[in-house]
Amino acid sequence: MKNKTINVTFSSHEYPIIIGENLLNNLTIFEQYIKGRQVLLVTNETIEKLLLNKFSPLAKQYEYQHVILPDGEQYKTLQSFEKILDVLAEHHHHRDTTLIALGGGVIGDITGFAAACYQRGVNFIQVPTTLLAQVDASIGGKTAIDHKMGKNLIGAFHQPQAVIIDIETLDTLPDREFRAGLAEIIKAAIIQDADFFDWLEQKMGAILQREKDVLITAIEKACIIKRNVVVQDEKEMGLRAILNFGHTFGHAIEQNLQYENWLHGEAVALGMLMAADLSVEIGWLNSAECARIHKLIHRAISVQQLPTQVKCATLLRAMHSDKKIQDNQLKLILLKGLGKPVITSDIPSKKIEGVIMHYTEEK
Amino acid sequence: MKNKTINVTFSSHEYPIIIGENLLNNLTIFEQYIKGRQVLLVTNETIEKLLLNKFSPLAKQYEYQHVILPDGEQYKTLQSFEKILDVLAEHHHHRDTTLIALGGGVIGDITGFAAACYQRGVNFIQVPTTLLAQVDASIGGKTAIDHKMGKNLIGAFHQPQAVIIDIETLDTLPDREFRAGLAEIIKAAIIQDADFFDWLEQKMGAILQREKDVLITAIEKACIIKRNVVVQDEKEMGLRAILNFGHTFGHAIEQNLQYENWLHGEAVALGMLMAADLSVEIGWLNSAECARIHKLIHRAISVQQLPTQVKCATLLRAMHSDKKIQDNQLKLILLKGLGKPVITSDIPSKKIEGVIMHYTEEK
Repeated sequence: MKNKTINVTFSSHEYPIIIGENLLNNLTIFEQYIKGRQVLLVTNETIEKLLLNKFSPLAKQYEYQHVILPDGEQYKTLQSFEKILDVLAEHHHHRDTTLIALGGGVIGDITGFAAACYQRGVNFIQVPTTLLAQVDASIGGKTAIDHKMGKNLIGAFHQPQAVIIDIETLDTLPDREFRAGLAEIIKAAIIQDADFFDWLEQKMGAILQREKDVLITAIEKACIIKRNVVVQDEKEMGLRAILNFGHTFGHAIEQNLQYENWLHGEAVALGMLMAADLSVEIGWLNSAECARIHKLIHRAISVQQLPTQVKCATLLRAMHSDKKIQDNQLKLILLKGLGKPVITSDIPSKKIEGVIMHYTEEK
Repeated sequence: MKNKTINVTFSSHEYPIIIGENLLNNLTIFEQYIKGRQVLLVTNETIEKLLLNKFSPLAKQYEYQHVILPDGEQYKTLQSFEKILDVLAEHHHHRDTTLIALGGGVIGDITGFAAACYQRGVNFIQVPTTLLAQVDASIGGKTAIDHKMGKNLIGAFHQPQAVIIDIETLDTLPDREFRAGLAEIIKAAIIQDADFFDWLEQKMGAILQREKDVLITAIEKACIIKRNVVVQDEKEMGLRAILNFGHTFGHAIEQNLQYENWLHGEAVALGMLMAADLSVEIGWLNSAECARIHKLIHRAISVQQLPTQVKCATLLRAMHSDKKIQDNQLKLILLKGLGKPVITSDIPSKKIEGVIMHYTEEK
């Protein structure tokens, strides 16, 4: 199958998302996006074992170093950021150096942020290796690290030179992570493309079997949807908020669980169920479409209810402290139909509470 | 005297530089640049004693905190950056918060970088309190912290909402710092405006007496020159390099002295003498103009020679490791006349060495 290329065009920068098979077995595709003579690859200990050796040919052509971080969101810290900068500085990387982020969203976010800040911005290439990162984190130029007070509190908008998605990297992705990644693909369909939602309903079986052609198409469509949104709103001033469908609930769930036990995609999946239910509750979405949303999400991801330790009141409190809140207005993304999101801050707390209660065992 | 306002217009952002007297005694000027309800002021221990109380009225109108850093370039670190972010996060500052940088270049750079990174970019206002910061560091959107391998190695381009220059803040500036600040004003004239250079020759006496009207005009003209350069080259891709006239030599001097003993403006002053001499040496600048440059610089700043511990060889080595070097090409800004800078990387090392040797006691 031929590679798919999606161009991402901002006013001052353009770059491709390239999706294909076996892209890491022939690094010529990288050469055109490496401008200088220095390369620093950043990955984690898990990916190191699986994929790092594919990049060893770079050492013949470039001054090449790598940084291996421990695996996990808990390492998305200022310390990891500093470690990357130390290696860049100690090896005298110049402004024309290129960083390669090889890994999931955590690696992409930290590496992108280091690239944004080293010498006030150097080039980087995203090589996302999880489904979640391929369809979401690697696109749009958001980079960040976490702070103990909140996820992604420190970061920058910094666009890569290219996003290179080799779907072979999914071969070793655990089933649970693969399924969680589908949450963002389903989200893309829900917020922007009812036809793509239909298609997902038909193809979910093949996707779960990881049939390559179907998978490439699903990734491509999700990437195009995200691309179309972010190019209209590079710095997240407005429209981009629709990408947060299900996320205000989802982030609050993750925060209540201290980012343990549930994967991001799982929290977002339950958040999307809540957002869909709330959309029905206020009379915007019809219940047939809501049922289709429930059914498709449940085929991919088995979340049904909030964990017992997550209470309605603490969830609501977490939603109100979400960093995206300006002037304490809680903004939600709800639906007037498949592909028809609305950004609103007018929903009565009682209605929100009612929907959340439905997913708890509280009385 | 009426305030002077210089508009700085980038493609996606416009802001004013406001120059005047007594601007900090009436904070209404700040109100139009503070968009949300939260304000964090950052300053250092020296400025705290002199000026912090002027900002106490902000606490009546806004959720107001301040961070006091120790005074000195050695605190322009990731730790200071982290300290500011901790306060922002712990006090739940939202995306519409405003940071105020009250101090010299160090405070402006750290605070600007924290503003660039907190929640991927929040508003900030520069209130530069040293002459150097007023005419140089606060304008153009360069923000940074230092790394043990080099100054300003970690940073971002992030434009403020406003630069507010109250020349009363210079009343307490020590004479040596004031004079060092003049280096950047003289540099502005040398690289862009021969008439301003003439004017400086006439007015240097009044400037050194800190006559307010003359001082405001000098600051205004230097700010306009810098503005005119940076708006053409926001991200330092080319033209902006001319602002580094004297700085490649100057940075190397500072680095050789471990950033101790000499002020930045003093190192730049000697660097400008070297750059002017080199311009004569290669036949670009006539010796009469070079003599005028020497004379004006010496009226302001008394640097004559390199400190004995700085050797020609180590200075050259430091120049070659300057972070602005791409592909190991040493770029210099030389002159074809007053107001006529040329960016070049074709100067034989022997010529550079010859000029440096002239400022050492080496044989």
